[in-house]
Amino acid sequence: MSAYIQPPLPEERGTKRGMDQQKKRNMNNDHDDVLEPPTNFSMVEDGIFRSGFPQPSNFPFLQSLNLRSIIYLCPEPYPEENLEFLRSQNIQLLQFGIEGKTEPSVSILKDTILEALKVLIDVRNHPVLIHCKRGKHRTGCLVGCLRKFQNWCLSSVFEEYQRFAGMKSRATDMRFLEGFDTLLLRQCLYSIIYQYQGYGSNKRRLLYREDNLQKPQTMKV
Amino acid sequence: MSAYIQPPLPEERGTKRGMDQQKKRNMNNDHDDVLEPPTNFSMVEDGIFRSGFPQPSNFPFLQSLNLRSIIYLCPEPYPEENLEFLRSQNIQLLQFGIEGKTEPSVSILKDTILEALKVLIDVRNHPVLIHCKRGKHRTGCLVGCLRKFQNWCLSSVFEEYQRFAGMKSRATDMRFLEGFDTLLLRQCLYSIIYQYQGYGSNKRRLLYREDNLQKPQTMKV
Repeated sequence: MSAYIQPPLPEERGTKRGMDQQKKRNMNNDHDDVLEPPTNFSMVEDGIFRSGFPQPSNFPFLQSLNLRSIIYLCPEPYPEENLEFLRSQNIQLLQFGIEGKTEPSVSILKDTILEALKVLIDVRNHPVLIHCKRGKHRTGCLVGCLRKFQNWCLSSVFEEYQRFAGMKSRATDMRFLEGFDTLLLRQCLYSIIYQYQGYGSNKRRLLYREDNLQKPQTMKV
Repeated sequence: MSAYIQPPLPEERGTKRGMDQQKKRNMNNDHDDVLEPPTNFSMVEDGIFRSGFPQPSNFPFLQSLNLRSIIYLCPEPYPEENLEFLRSQNIQLLQFGIEGKTEPSVSILKDTILEALKVLIDVRNHPVLIHCKRGKHRTGCLVGCLRKFQNWCLSSVFEEYQRFAGMKSRATDMRFLEGFDTLLLRQCLYSIIYQYQGYGSNKRRLLYREDNLQKPQTMKV
């Protein structure tokens, strides 16, 4: 996430002094610029990251991700310190409040996750970080629904959920994931077509284009 | 990893029949094209993936990653079925044999990991999948060294290692990660400068360019 290597200054290249200076800079770099990702941090897809609640010590790392948005899944207000960081980095906060208790209403959860998914797969919001408090349950449910939408088999969706939830895996979350119907989302998206770009540029990513031809009238489910 | 949504055919767009056909195709799609990622699969960075040993049932998923190479960390020969898949997809196999026993020689491990790291960070090999047998120890060590090279703090390196190793975390691996000196790699790479591209294209990735000006003579450590 940080620059992989700090190149020597042009006038120093290939000289003994240049190498020594460079070594010193890199050594200093090792100590000064050490990066601390938020707890439970991981890359989900190109332009999509997940984690637990970011602390101020994680801000330099988050800065290196050049985020455009944060999807925040708790109902509690965002801390002022974090809001200040977001303002300074021009990152938009997209909040979808889901209660952290173990048995949220499935229908409320479904509706909220569906709204969050629509925002999540919109590449105009990327790069985006999804987080809740610990990056286990609410974040795990949203990522799990994304995986179902990507046609992952259920056992792989569960494996990924459990890898992040660890000992705290919840049977209710897994039942929710199993029952979540991605057709809901597909039908909501008929007027906006997302598709993967070819590998011309050796990069796979989501493309966004408006379908201006004619909007179907039966979009809402 | 799969296409996010299958767009309606142009002549069908906006018609009732088109919507029905589309719904049918998507529903079929849900059943026919279900993707099975290899066990312990995850994205590490743009163009870098990790997993356990891929089985034939995982080939359709791997195909969707459009891999250019596979870094294979076991000494055992690659199965013929997997070789056949690699040939059909024009994927190169880069093998770095590390014994799977719990106490490999630290100096041999260090040298092999260093060689694998050089190949791993060379974007000409991306997209690349790293795998060993279970995607826990050998893969975890290589990814952990990459994280140190990216200046991640040690506790975050450990957290990621443990997330994939689970109950099978090895203290020897963690001591290896703690002791691994990324200066070795930096010094090997003075003539090849990797740096992150700016966000002009809203994508962060490694760039590769040869430094043709003058190669330092003191590259080897």
